[in-house]
This record gives sequence, C-alpha cells and structure tokens, in this order.
Amino acid sequence: MLRRIDKVLLEQENNLLKNDLDADYAALGEKLARSDVDIELLTQAAGKFQIAVPSWGTGTGGTRFARFPGEGEPRNIWEKLEDCAVINELSGCTDSVSPHFPWDKVSDFSELKEKADAYGIKWVSVNSNTFQDQTGQTASYKYGSLSNTQKASRELAIAHNLDCIEYGQKLGAKSLTVWVGDGSNHPGQQHFQRAFERYLASMEEIYKGLPDDWEMHIEHKMFEPAFYSTIIQDWGSNILAAMQLGPKCKSLVDLGHHAPNTNIEMIVSRLIQFKKLGGFHFNDSKYGDDDLDSGSLHPYQQFLIFNELVDAEYRQQEAFGPAYMLDQSHNVTDPAESLINSAIEVQRSYVKALIVDREKLYGYQDENDALMASLELKNAFNLDVSPILAMARLRKGAAIDPLAVYRKSNYRENMAKERPRDPNATGSGIV
Amino acid sequence: MLRRIDKVLLEQENNLLKNDLDADYAALGEKLARSDVDIELLTQAAGKFQIAVPSWGTGTGGTRFARFPGEGEPRNIWEKLEDCAVINELSGCTDSVSPHFPWDKVSDFSELKEKADAYGIKWVSVNSNTFQDQTGQTASYKYGSLSNTQKASRELAIAHNLDCIEYGQKLGAKSLTVWVGDGSNHPGQQHFQRAFERYLASMEEIYKGLPDDWEMHIEHKMFEPAFYSTIIQDWGSNILAAMQLGPKCKSLVDLGHHAPNTNIEMIVSRLIQFKKLGGFHFNDSKYGDDDLDSGSLHPYQQFLIFNELVDAEYRQQEAFGPAYMLDQSHNVTDPAESLINSAIEVQRSYVKALIVDREKLYGYQDENDALMASLELKNAFNLDVSPILAMARLRKGAAIDPLAVYRKSNYRENMAKERPRDPNATGSGIV
Amino acid sequence: MLRRIDKVLLEQENNLLKNDLDADYAALGEKLARSDVDIELLTQAAGKFQIAVPSWGTGTGGTRFARFPGEGEPRNIWEKLEDCAVINELSGCTDSVSPHFPWDKVSDFSELKEKADAYGIKWVSVNSNTFQDQTGQTASYKYGSLSNTQKASRELAIAHNLDCIEYGQKLGAKSLTVWVGDGSNHPGQQHFQRAFERYLASMEEIYKGLPDDWEMHIEHKMFEPAFYSTIIQDWGSNILAAMQLGPKCKSLVDLGHHAPNTNIEMIVSRLIQFKKLGGFHFNDSKYGDDDLDSGSLHPYQQFLIFNELVDAEYRQQEAFGPAYMLDQSHNVTDPAESLINSAIEVQRSYVKALIVDREKLYGYQDENDALMASLELKNAFNLDVSPILAMARLRKGAAIDPLAVYRKSNYRENMAKERPRDPNATGSGIV
Amino acid sequence: MLRRIDKVLLEQENNLLKNDLDADYAALGEKLARSDVDIELLTQAAGKFQIAVPSWGTGTGGTRFARFPGEGEPRNIWEKLEDCAVINELSGCTDSVSPHFPWDKVSDFSELKEKADAYGIKWVSVNSNTFQDQTGQTASYKYGSLSNTQKASRELAIAHNLDCIEYGQKLGAKSLTVWVGDGSNHPGQQHFQRAFERYLASMEEIYKGLPDDWEMHIEHKMFEPAFYSTIIQDWGSNILAAMQLGPKCKSLVDLGHHAPNTNIEMIVSRLIQFKKLGGFHFNDSKYGDDDLDSGSLHPYQQFLIFNELVDAEYRQQEAFGPAYMLDQSHNVTDPAESLINSAIEVQRSYVKALIVDREKLYGYQDENDALMASLELKNAFNLDVSPILAMARLRKGAAIDPLAVYRKSNYRENMAKERPRDPNATGSGIV
Repeated sequence: MLRRIDKVLLEQENNLLKNDLDADYAALGEKLARSDVDIELLTQAAGKFQIAVPSWGTGTGGTRFARFPGEGEPRNIWEKLEDCAVINELSGCTDSVSPHFPWDKVSDFSELKEKADAYGIKWVSVNSNTFQDQTGQTASYKYGSLSNTQKASRELAIAHNLDCIEYGQKLGAKSLTVWVGDGSNHPGQQHFQRAFERYLASMEEIYKGLPDDWEMHIEHKMFEPAFYSTIIQDWGSNILAAMQLGPKCKSLVDLGHHAPNTNIEMIVSRLIQFKKLGGFHFNDSKYGDDDLDSGSLHPYQQFLIFNELVDAEYRQQEAFGPAYMLDQSHNVTDPAESLINSAIEVQRSYVKALIVDREKLYGYQDENDALMASLELKNAFNLDVSPILAMARLRKGAAIDPLAVYRKSNYRENMAKERPRDPNATGSGIV
Repeated sequence: MLRRIDKVLLEQENNLLKNDLDADYAALGEKLARSDVDIELLTQAAGKFQIAVPSWGTGTGGTRFARFPGEGEPRNIWEKLEDCAVINELSGCTDSVSPHFPWDKVSDFSELKEKADAYGIKWVSVNSNTFQDQTGQTASYKYGSLSNTQKASRELAIAHNLDCIEYGQKLGAKSLTVWVGDGSNHPGQQHFQRAFERYLASMEEIYKGLPDDWEMHIEHKMFEPAFYSTIIQDWGSNILAAMQLGPKCKSLVDLGHHAPNTNIEMIVSRLIQFKKLGGFHFNDSKYGDDDLDSGSLHPYQQFLIFNELVDAEYRQQEAFGPAYMLDQSHNVTDPAESLINSAIEVQRSYVKALIVDREKLYGYQDENDALMASLELKNAFNLDVSPILAMARLRKGAAIDPLAVYRKSNYRENMAKERPRDPNATGSGIV
Repeated sequence: MLRRIDKVLLEQENNLLKNDLDADYAALGEKLARSDVDIELLTQAAGKFQIAVPSWGTGTGGTRFARFPGEGEPRNIWEKLEDCAVINELSGCTDSVSPHFPWDKVSDFSELKEKADAYGIKWVSVNSNTFQDQTGQTASYKYGSLSNTQKASRELAIAHNLDCIEYGQKLGAKSLTVWVGDGSNHPGQQHFQRAFERYLASMEEIYKGLPDDWEMHIEHKMFEPAFYSTIIQDWGSNILAAMQLGPKCKSLVDLGHHAPNTNIEMIVSRLIQFKKLGGFHFNDSKYGDDDLDSGSLHPYQQFLIFNELVDAEYRQQEAFGPAYMLDQSHNVTDPAESLINSAIEVQRSYVKALIVDREKLYGYQDENDALMASLELKNAFNLDVSPILAMARLRKGAAIDPLAVYRKSNYRENMAKERPRDPNATGSGIV
Repeated sequence: MLRRIDKVLLEQENNLLKNDLDADYAALGEKLARSDVDIELLTQAAGKFQIAVPSWGTGTGGTRFARFPGEGEPRNIWEKLEDCAVINELSGCTDSVSPHFPWDKVSDFSELKEKADAYGIKWVSVNSNTFQDQTGQTASYKYGSLSNTQKASRELAIAHNLDCIEYGQKLGAKSLTVWVGDGSNHPGQQHFQRAFERYLASMEEIYKGLPDDWEMHIEHKMFEPAFYSTIIQDWGSNILAAMQLGPKCKSLVDLGHHAPNTNIEMIVSRLIQFKKLGGFHFNDSKYGDDDLDSGSLHPYQQFLIFNELVDAEYRQQEAFGPAYMLDQSHNVTDPAESLINSAIEVQRSYVKALIVDREKLYGYQDENDALMASLELKNAFNLDVSPILAMARLRKGAAIDPLAVYRKSNYRENMAKERPRDPNATGSGIV
C-alpha cells in the first residue's frame, strides 16, 4: 500500500510508547474483566470502526467574515486525497472519503479511483452542491434549487444530482447525500407548501436515477444560508420526504443542524425505529452549525448517540446500517490534525457505548430505577478507553500517538513547499 | 339566553362608544375599499370566528414555586362555566368550553350540558389528565402513563381516556385531546423506542374507543414536566404517531411547546399539507411553556400562523378544519380579563390574515420578489382592524370595550362574596 | 441639493396618493385627538427622526456558503454614497452614512465629504475592521486582533483604529464603533481572563486617541466568527469594559447578537440606567446574527425597545442620546429597497412608542394592573401610524410610497448599465 | 461522631472492594506519574473538597403539574439533617447543609446546631424565601418582593432577609443567598429601571444588616417564575448590583439559570476577574432550570467550569474563594442517592481539572496552538479518576461504593416506617 508518512518514523514513535500502552491496556483489561467485559472484543470492534472524511474538510474553513488559510493546504481533489491518506495512516479509522461536486470533479475518475485504491481509500457518500452558482451557470440558485419557482433552476439542480450519481458510480460509491440551502429570508417570500411540493417532485426525478444498490440521504438543517425558513428544516420534514420518496431514501443527521436544546439522541432513536436512519455528519457545536471538532464540546451527547446506535445493533434492529462521516470546518487548526483527532473521538464514543451492559440497563429501565440506569451509561462513559483505541491503532499499523507522529513528520511544512497557494483552489471554507 | 352581565350596563357602555366606532369603521372601510377589500365581509368573518376557552384557565395559574390565587375564583366546573359565559357575553367570540377530567367530572353531565346550553355555550375538545396521581389511584403515573413500563399504569391511563370520551359524548363534544407528560429526567432512564412502542400500543386502544364522528388530537411538547426526554417531543413524533394511528387522529399545536427559534408557522403548513392539523392551543411565550396571553409578545408570529390557516382555506385544502382553543396560565391578571383579551387578539390575527391579497402574494412568490411578498403580509398586519372586531362584537350583542364593561360590572368583586376560597378547588394553576 | 431621483417623477407619484393620504391622516388625527394626542406633534417627531445607513449594506450580502450579487451594485464608497442618497431622498429619514474602513478608505476624504454634503448626507459612526486580513498585512488577525497573544497583531489593530478616528475626523464623524470577532473555537484555546486583559489594554490605547467630543462604542455579540467563546460575548462584558475605559466609552446594541430568548429591551433599560447606552445596530433575526430587515420578524420587540428609549427621553434620563443605525445583510432583495423599508419600520416603532400615555402607564404599573399596563403598550402598537410616516415624508419632499417611486425610476436598471461588475469591489456580503 | 449508617456494614462493603480499588489506584498512579503528576496530591485534594447540600433537596421535587413524593421523606429540618448526615457519611464530601427559611425555622436554633455538630455537619449559605406567601402574611409577594411597588411588601421582604441573617448567625453560617422571583409576565407590567432601583434600595437595607464577616450572594436567573422579565435576569444585572452594594456582596452562579447556548465557564471567568464570584449552585439542565443531577447531562461543561476555578487557585487570584453547593430537584430518584452521586460528580470535575498541566496549557495558548490546548483539557477529562475519588472516600471512613452501601442499609425503607407522610411537610418540590 502506498504510504505518505514514513513507516520508520511511525514505528520508532510507536516503540517509544508501546511498553506504557501495554501496561495501561493490561490494567484496563483486568478492570473490565471484573464486569465480564472482554477487552479484546472491544479492541477488535474499535479496529473495525471506520468513519469517512469529507474531502472539503481538508482545507481551512472560514466564515462569512473571513477565511484565514494555512500553508500547504490541498488545492484540488488529488491533494485532498493525499491528506486523507495521511489521516488514515495515522488514525487507522478513516479508510474512506466523501467527495463533493463540482469541487471534486475530474476529467478521469478511473485515475482518481486508482490513486485512492493505492492508498487503501474508498469513496463513499457523494455530495451535490446546489447552494452556489458556478461560473457560467445557465440558471441561478439564488432563490433556491430543487424547490425554485423557476423550472430552469430546478432542472439544473436535478441534472447536477444525476451527474453526481454518475461520478459516484465511477468511484464505487453507493449513496448520494442531498443537502440544499433552499429557503427564505422573509415571511411571505415562499409558499411553504408549494415549495415543498416542488422539492419533492424534483427529488422524485433524482430518486428515479438512483441505481438499485444505492441509497439517497436527505440532510435537514434548521437555518443557514436561509434565515427565516428552510425547506428541510428538521427531522420531521426530513422523514416525511424520505417516506414519500421510497425505501432507498433515508434521513441523515448532522449534529449541528438542530434547534437549541434539541434531544438529538432521541431523534436518532426515532429514525432507527421508523427504519429511516441513513447516516451521520459528525461534528460539535455550541450555537448553530458551528462545525467544530467532534466531541470537543459535548462528548457525553456524542456517547448518548452511540448508545442508541449500539443498542440498535444489539437488538438487531431491521434496516439499520447508517453511514458515518465527519463534517467539520477547521478554522484555527491544521485540518489534518483536527480530522485525525475527531475520528478518534467518534471511535471513542462507539467503544464506550459497547461497554454498557444492555441487559442490566433494560432491567433498570423496566423497574424505573432511574439513577442506576443513568449510572449504567455514565460509568461506561467515565471509563478511559484510550488504551483500547491506541491498541487498535497499533495493531493496524497506525500510530499510538497520531498527532505526535504527524508533527514529527513535518508533513504540513513539506506540503507548504510543494503546494504554493492557488487562488482557484476549490471547496475550502465551506461545510 | 341566560346572561350574567347586566344587559343595561352593556348597552349603556356601547352607546357611549358607538359614534366613535362608526366613524373609525367608516374610515377603515374607505381605506380598504381602495384595495378592493369589502369591510363587511371581514366583519362577517370576524363575527363567525370562535375560539374555545379552557375550563381550567378561569382560575389563577401558578408555577412550581408558588400560586397566588385571586379573590372570587371559580371553585368547580359550575363556576368555571359561569365565568366562561361572562367571557363570551363580552367578547362575542368564545362560545365553547374545553373541559379537563377528572377535574371537571360531575355526577350528572346532562345537568352540566343544560346549564351550558342556557348560556349558549358548547362543550368541545375533552382533555384527559394522566400527569397527576389522583387520591386513591391504584397505579401511579410517576414514571409515565400511556408509555409506563408497568401494565397497570398504562391500563389505568387508557381507561381514563376512554372515560373522557364517554363524558365528552354526554356533553356533545367531538374530540379528545391527549397530552401526556411521559418522559425521563436521566439519560438511560427510558428506552426511547420501547417507550414509544408502548405509547403507540396504548393509543391504539384509545383510538378503538373513539366514536366514528370523533377526532383524537395528539399534543407535542419539548419538555416539562420531563426534563431530559419527552415521548411526543415535537411535531415529528406527533405526526408519525398520528399517521400510524389512523385518519381520525391528528396533531395539535400549542404555540409554547417548541424549541427556541422554531418556525412554528412552517410546522403548521407541513401539518396542513399532510392532512394532520387537528387544532391549536393558543398562548404566547418567551422561554418555555410560559402560557402567557395570546399575542402579548409575538403578535406577528400569531398573524403568520393565521396566514397559513387562511391560505389553506383559500386554497380549499383537503381535510382542513382545525379546532381553536386558548390554553394559558394567568398568574398575575384576572383570568377572565386575560381570556377575553386573548380571544380577541387571536381573532385580530385571523381578520388581518384575511386582508392579504393571496393572488398578488402568489405572484410575488413566483417572481421571487421577496420584499413585495413580505410587504403584502406586513401591510395587512400593520392595519389597525380594531374597528372591525368591535363592530363584530357590537352586532352580536357583545361589548365594544369588553374590559371596561367587565370592570364596571364588578363581576369579580361580586364573585369574591359568593365564592369563599375553597382549599379543595380543582384544576387551577396547571395548564 | 444634489438629487439622484427625478423630482418630477417623485411629485407625480406623490400627487397620485395625496388625497387618500389626507383622508387617512385626518381620520387618524381625529381618533388620536379623542385620547388627547396631537397628531401634528407625532408628525413633527417623525420628521426629525433619522437613522444612519451602513455603507456596506448597500451591496448584496451573503453567507459562508455563497453570495449571489445583483446587478448594478455599488463597487466603492462613491457609488455606495450615491445609493445612500437615493435611500434618503425617498425615505426622508436616513440623512447619514456610517463608513467601514479600510473598505471605504479614499485618498482624499475632503472630496468624499464634499460629495456627501452635496447630497445632504452626513458621516457618522466610523467602523474599524480587524476581523479580516488585508493583502500584505504585516501581522495576522487569525487568532484575534485587540486581544491577540502576539503584540504585533494587537499593535496593528490599535493603529488601524486610530487611523479610523483620523479618517472619521476628516469626514466630520463623532464616534468610533469597535466590533471584534476575537474569540476561540476550542475550550482551552484562549485564557479568558488574560485575553480580556489584553483587549482592555489595547482599547485603552485607542481611548487615549479619542478626540474630546468623540465617543467610542463597544459592540457585543454572542458568537460568530468565533464558535466557542467571544471576547465581548454579551452586554455584561460590554458594560464592564465601557465602565473601565471611561465616560467616552459606551455600549452598542445590535439586535441580532444575543442568546436565544433574551429580553433585549431589558438590556436597553439597564444600559440607559447605568448611562452607558451608546447606540444601536438595527436589524431582525430568528436564529443568530441573521441581519434580516428591521422589524420584518419581531415588530413588537422593536416597539418595546423604542418604548424604553421614548421613556428615557420622557424622564429626561441623564447621559441619554443613543446613535441609531441599520446593520443588515440583504441577500435576496435589492439592498436599497430593504434599507428604505427598514428605516421606515424603525421610524414606525418610534412613532408608536410616542403614543403611549406614560403617566397612565406609570399608574397601572404602580397598581400592579398588569393587563391594563400591557394594553397601554399594545394599543399604541396596534394603531396604524402609516399616515403619519407618509405625511412626514411628504412634508420633507420625500415619497409617500418610496418603493413605488424607486421602481418607477428604474434606478437599479440604470446602475446596472453604469456599474459593470467589479471583482475587486469591497465590503459587500459581510455585515 | 454520631452515625446513621451502620459502621460494620460500611466496612464490610469497603473490604469487599478494597483490593480492586488498590489495583486500580496503583495503575492510575503509575500512569499519572509518567506525566509527573503525584496521585497522592490529587487524593488529598479530593479529600479536602466539600460541597454543601441544600436542606430542601432531600425531599422529592416536583413541577407545576405534579409532585410524586416517595416514601420515608424527611418532613422537617430535623429529618432533613438526618438525611444530610447519611449523605455525608457515605460520600465523605458533603460536610455542610444550606438551610432555607422560613421552611427550616425552628424555635431553638442552638438545639439544631448541636444536633448538626453531633453529625459533624456545618451550616452554610442561608437562603431567604420571598417568592411565596406564608399563611397570614401581612403583605403579598404576588407582584414582587424586594422590588414590589408597594412599600409594605418590600419591608416585609427586607425584614425576612434580616431574620435569615439572625438565624444563620445562630447556626454559624457566614453568608446569605438572595434569590428573588421578582419580574413580570407582560410587557409594560413593570418599569424596568424603577423596579431595579427599588430592588437595589431594598438590598442596601439588607446589606447594612450584614455582619462584618458575612457575605451576601445574589443569584441571577433568566426566567421562572416570571416569564417575560426577571429583575436579576443574568450575570450582567447581577454583577452591577453586587458592585453597587459593596465588597461583601458577590454573585452566585446556578448552572441552570442561563439563556440557551450560554458559555457559562466564561461568565465564571469574568466574575473571578472582577472579584465578584461568590459561589455556585450546581446542577445540570437541558431546557431551563431543570435542576437535574450535577454532571448528568453536560459533564464536560462542569469540568470546564472547574478548569476556571482551579486556574484561579493556581494563579492565586485575589478575592477568590467561592462557596460550592448543590441545588437540584429530584423528581424521579431517591433524593439521598441523587445528592450522594451529584456531590461526587462535582468532586470528579474538580480532580480532573487539577490534572491539567497549567504551564503547558499557557504555552499552547500563547502560541495559538488551539488543538494542543484543547487536548490538554480533554485528555485530563478523559482520564478516569474514579479510583482517586474512591480512595479519598475510603481514607475518610466513607464508602468506596456509596450507593451500594446505602441500598444495603435499607435506610429509606426504615425511614418509611419512622416517617409517615405529613401533609404539612415544608419545602419539598421547590428548588
């Protein structure tokens, strides 16, 4: 497999930490064994856990006020792929990339696929972009795309989504994620019902173009870029659309797209129950769609979401198999570092959720023993599973301490030399 | 018709104001005529508009911290009915009452119906109460009612709802409103999916007991009394439950039951589109389920909701005919005064929404003329329709200035003498 | 006075509407007279009311996702000034412009002042920009400006603010508005106290450079562009900074910069009471700093803010004299139209607040007659004061129906020919 | 020392767990030693950490809808004290109780103090209650207490607070916590400025009665029981009041009393910087003042607050020494269990915050290394410090597993026999 981080450096660094890791792992294993939890099963599960990286997340993000790009940023999908390979080599849990079109469009997709294959990277979850006008575009998305009152804009948006499916097929992807910014800034600007009817009619056209083994995922979002109403404003509109469109259409949850105080884990449960959970965009947030690093503000909420996911696995819930993906904007950090760390934080939530004794929990729930039920979750969360995550990485040839290796490799400094800044670089600063 | 406010006083007061009203009405009529709006049609529509009063809203409300009851409060459903009659005599737009059981249970419902008939008051929207334990109750609702893990509690709650239907039939009502406080205060306390499955199974039992010409309305609420999760936490869970239960089940919107920043008028549109809008609990709020007087804080939001309702009427939307009801907690005002004023404020929103030129609005929407579309709404809102509302009241024999007549009648002072405080009074302070 | 809208067209249009306006004005005057309110005093007050236009608000705004510019947008401060002149000619209530540097920097400020003088436009409230890096900047604001850990960045930001004062003096302005985006995206990224200490030290340097007859206004904002913490995150930090800096420093309130559910009118009252209310950025919002048109969503809230302002005037509150300014982002409308309409909506709130009978209100407040107190405000709000606003405009030579005249003038179409799009245009899309 | 939990049972239970604890403690000690952290210093600090229990928190709480009391609840301050003793015996970190008057008023305070002394319990933070009317009260708090427009109500509230100081002196307390529910439900109901002026004047009277070695703590709260405005609605009004009143007056932070999305740790930092942090009411919440168990929903936020507190200690910040107290409503759990667990969760945050390498953190902050700075905090949080907490308990004679011992002791079942339900029990269900 093609590598971008020097293997010798990686192994040197791992060797420095291995003894301590073994000690911590043994101590944790003993502790877990007292509760009849086999640490090896957790480490295996951790090793299998994978979360996709968004191609556009590899560049420095920004806000409407400004973007402060860093040195050595990737300027196109080829370079983004390089960074994604680095992230996976070090984290061991990000073996796929989600592309965004037209930003990531290339003339020869087979070449792109080959390059990714060489790195051991798969392509997943194709994203369409109908929230920006591209140069020379024949109709505008200023007043909406799939729900625009103008047929020309709707048709353009439909065609673009069908193109995305085609590109995705060439790359081996199996799903299309549709997020539109359609909405309004003024009461009265849009007729809510008619706009939704137009959206559904457009989506039906796209659904028809979906290959048999593909899924289509609808992403809801409360606001931004529209600031009064948004067409798929919440999971309610999302699931109703998904139900109307058919079994290959499901709902996707971005953690930052909800109203303040929303109980997101409950929405996840509802989507699971109604067989419509398609996937996730992981990130963290405090105010709106802040797109901060996963688990950096609300690690317990992220754990509670995985509690629902692991519970559905445990119950062998029908039609359950969501896609996991990061979707973040890295405005003040090196995007590669944030993506490595975020992927591991999501993996951490997953492993902690596996520790919960589900039968015990069900017992407390049945008896309405609220405190013991809550402690069954909280005790799992309070455990430090870092040794499990590190061991899983070590066994996969990744880094015990990924950030330390990354910094020692001088990857970004090297890229700064190789990649002079390009004003035509695409797709950074937007998430 | 039996009256509680002296007719002579009422007419005296109206006579004092009639000339001014005529002048204002004529000036407004002329102004509206310039836009081809016939003021008489608006006055007729205002006269037909009716909104139900909640029986429990006639007593002073409170919070978990305290309740400060006023003098002369009604102590039982008979006295509550008296106050409702007063509210209707003065406002002319509240000809029905919504009862709450077991608070309003009486031994002889035919007597209660007769009394109401004498006042020209109808009974609508029967409410069940499974959020409190009644003295001597055989199973508790501490950990939930329709979704309780314990069968005994669920069965008690189902039986109570079936009883409510029976009481309602005796009173001539045609719908049952189901709000439950079921939920949890701790992550893990409840299994979200299993709890929802139990809820749906219980609701199916109630649905089976619904007469053919009845509807059942589910009310969602984000939080309180449960502070981590609530079983019907939003319109998403609400409509999914209503769809699963069947065509006689619809969703009810209480304006104070949503997450901060939620676009409620859009939810109303979605429920209309999917033929599941059952009715409203009108009130206003700033923080949570504050149950403040309707339109007292966000009159434009209330107007925008009526914009959706009038639009649905205009488009002759199928399966559209929501029930209107006030649901407020009057902690620092005389409840009768607040209810009179609130009913008129809701009526005000309705009449303003009728002024919107829908075809013009559709035109602006089609052309994406956001500013003119928004002004089509805003200009209607900015009009002062008070003369129309007052004229509609005058023509129905109600008061031009209802609060002035109420105060001059010394109704509350008289009631203070007739109704000494009763520690066993039921159902006040809770909304 | 130099004009940009044809006077003949304006007068033709006014003549068409004058008779109707006279009739409406007379009817309203009679109605107000019944409550001893002299309509002429209101019309005079309306005529004196002026609110500043932000130079950058004349271009189409955008979001981090996209900006969809319109045709004929101003490309520099000279053209922005032209549009501001149009806005004032039609609205009659926007006789000043607030500039933003370095966007609006010119080589010869006296020429700019002369041009503005010719249009009858004043320059007010100078705004500094330390949230973007300018090309060739010697130190970066990526990690903050006035509070940056690096002295070089802080000094650059201080120097820029001092420059802004100098430019403002040349233009005849009397205040500097300081908004910084400084903050953090990660817990731990910044030491809250040390960052605030650095901010205060930098601000002291700027304060020293303030001419004797100038004020400095600090603007607080909850979030964006920083998504975990912001240095002046609320009015608490704002007033503490203003108190520490000295009497020439006051707090500025942007309506869209608060936490969900915040009672903004109460903050206004507190700032008045503590003699620290410097001014306003008017706009409306639903979710965050949405920068929507003033009064387009929450007109009653805007009225309640003016209730505080008019009350302070009435009570002759010491040190009271806030600066009024619009600050909006017009993403889907013609910015000139939105600014005209927004200025009038703010003026509307002011005039309605003047109608409140303050002595009556104080009486209700003293007696705890909550309902009558609330109706004293609500009744004033419910009045349609449009005839007063239109009459005030007519008397000043502005338009009875400004938007109709604007559209008939074909101003924007003409500008589209005169102003071909310029990729180097500055300062649009950011508010 | 008088004990309520059988010492033999406690030691038996501890003996069962001691070997495992020793192993876990040793492993953690080794791990910490690698980062030059001495586990023994942490264990000593944990042992010294104490947080007060609110007397009223020992009874089952409720909402405005209902309260579902448990069996064996304390019915008066003597029995509440018994439960507080149990909580301290098992947790080892709650050696003080905060009383609430008039609920906890007794005829002989010296007897109450003796009883507490016997249990090794101190009395701290006296709370006044002016949000409820007591039977026979000469003036009402319906429209406010310290800010009421009526002098009689204000004087009553002032006198009550002075009484509370007197009771507190008899018990050995050193501070008075003042929370008032004063506010309004309707725009216009109150004159914001005049109400605040009355509040400040009343508080000055209380301040005058404060012994030299006492502090007075003001508690802010966004809403409830008032739903439009609250007199001390946020930390801004709080600190301004505290500054005006004098050096013995400080601000108290209840974690559940803020607007959605508020950065509370930043407020804590500001209060520390301006020398006005008086203390805390710890609890957790999702929607409003939910009063859930501390750390049960947002453990990382609680850690970030302690990060500020430990940092202030480390920097030897002047005038720093906040009082720690729980303030929760236990609606669905045994209050004793929730209080034990919550106290330990707060202690957990404290110990984790001690692990942060402050000098390293300052270095990352200075270099704007946002990711490493955030990881310095997050890594400390991710550590499982349970063995340290358990060892600190063991060494103090408390329980390794407090809940297990509590349940085995059958304390609540025994109390259910000793304490038949009393309808006149005071102060439960309100927090």
